[in-house]
Amino acid sequence: MNKKLVIALLAATIAGTAGAQVKPEDAIKFRQSGYGFMAWNMQRIKANVEGKFDKDEVVKAANAIQAIANSGMGALYLPGTDKGKGWETTRAKPAIWTEKEKLGKAAVAFNKEANEMAKVAATGDAAAVKEQLGKLGSTCKGCHDDFKIKD
Amino acid sequence: MNKKLVIALLAATIAGTAGAQVKPEDAIKFRQSGYGFMAWNMQRIKANVEGKFDKDEVVKAANAIQAIANSGMGALYLPGTDKGKGWETTRAKPAIWTEKEKLGKAAVAFNKEANEMAKVAATGDAAAVKEQLGKLGSTCKGCHDDFKIKD
Repeated sequence: MNKKLVIALLAATIAGTAGAQVKPEDAIKFRQSGYGFMAWNMQRIKANVEGKFDKDEVVKAANAIQAIANSGMGALYLPGTDKGKGWETTRAKPAIWTEKEKLGKAAVAFNKEANEMAKVAATGDAAAVKEQLGKLGSTCKGCHDDFKIKD
Repeated sequence: MNKKLVIALLAATIAGTAGAQVKPEDAIKFRQSGYGFMAWNMQRIKANVEGKFDKDEVVKAANAIQAIANSGMGALYLPGTDKGKGWETTRAKPAIWTEKEKLGKAAVAFNKEANEMAKVAATGDAAAVKEQLGKLGSTCKGCHDDFKIKD
C-alpha cells in the first residue's frame, strides 16, 4: 500500500472509532432501553397466550425481541459502565466483565430462543408460542440470576 | 352461536384485555425505551456512514429500528399517559391525543423510511445508507417537532 492510502485508511479507522464512541451514561441508558422494550414485548406475548391470541401482535412483539437480541448489545457493556446511571443506576453485576465464558453462553442461549420465538410466532400456533415463551423467559431469568442485581 | 360459546368468547376477550393492560407508568417507560433504543441505533448508523463502514453493524442497527418501528408502539399512548413519569417525565405533547390524522401521517412516514432503511442496509451500499439515514432522521425530527416537548 502506498503511504497516502495507509494514512487515509488510518484516518477513516480513527474517525470510525471516535464516531462510534458512546458515553458511559448513554451506554447504560441504551442497554436499559433495550431490556425495557423487550420487557414490554414479553409481557404482550404473555397476555396473548393467557388471553385472546392475536397473531399479528405476537409476531410484532417477537420480531422486536429478536431484532434487539441480535443487535449486538454487548457493545454497550463498555469498560467503566459497571457503575453509573443511565435511566437509573445500573444493576449490572461485576461478573459481566469477569465471567466472559459464562456470559457468552447465556447470550447465545438467549439469542437462540429469541430467534426461535420469531419463527414460532410466525406460525400463529398459540400453544407453541406459549411453550416457546417459557423457553425464552428461562434464558432471560438465567442471565438475570447470574448477572443482574435484584430489584 | 349458542350461549355457552358466547360466554366463552366473552370471557376470553375480557381475559385478553385484562392481560394486555399496561400500567400508565409502564406504558411511558416502554415507549421511552423504544425511542431510547432506536436512538442508539441511529447513532450507530451515523457513526458508520461518517467513519469506518461496518455492514454487519449497520444491518443489525437498521433491523432493530425497523422492528421497533413496526411493533405497534401506538398502543403505549394510552389515555391518561399524556402526563406522568416512566424512566422520566413524559415529553409527549397533548397533540398526540388530539391531532390523530397528523400523527397517523407522521407514523406512516416513519415506518416507511424505517422499512426502507433495513432494505438499504442489507445492500451494504454506504452512500445509499447515508442518504436513507437522512430521510429516516427527517421523519424522526418531523414527529418530534410536532409531538415531543423539547429538551
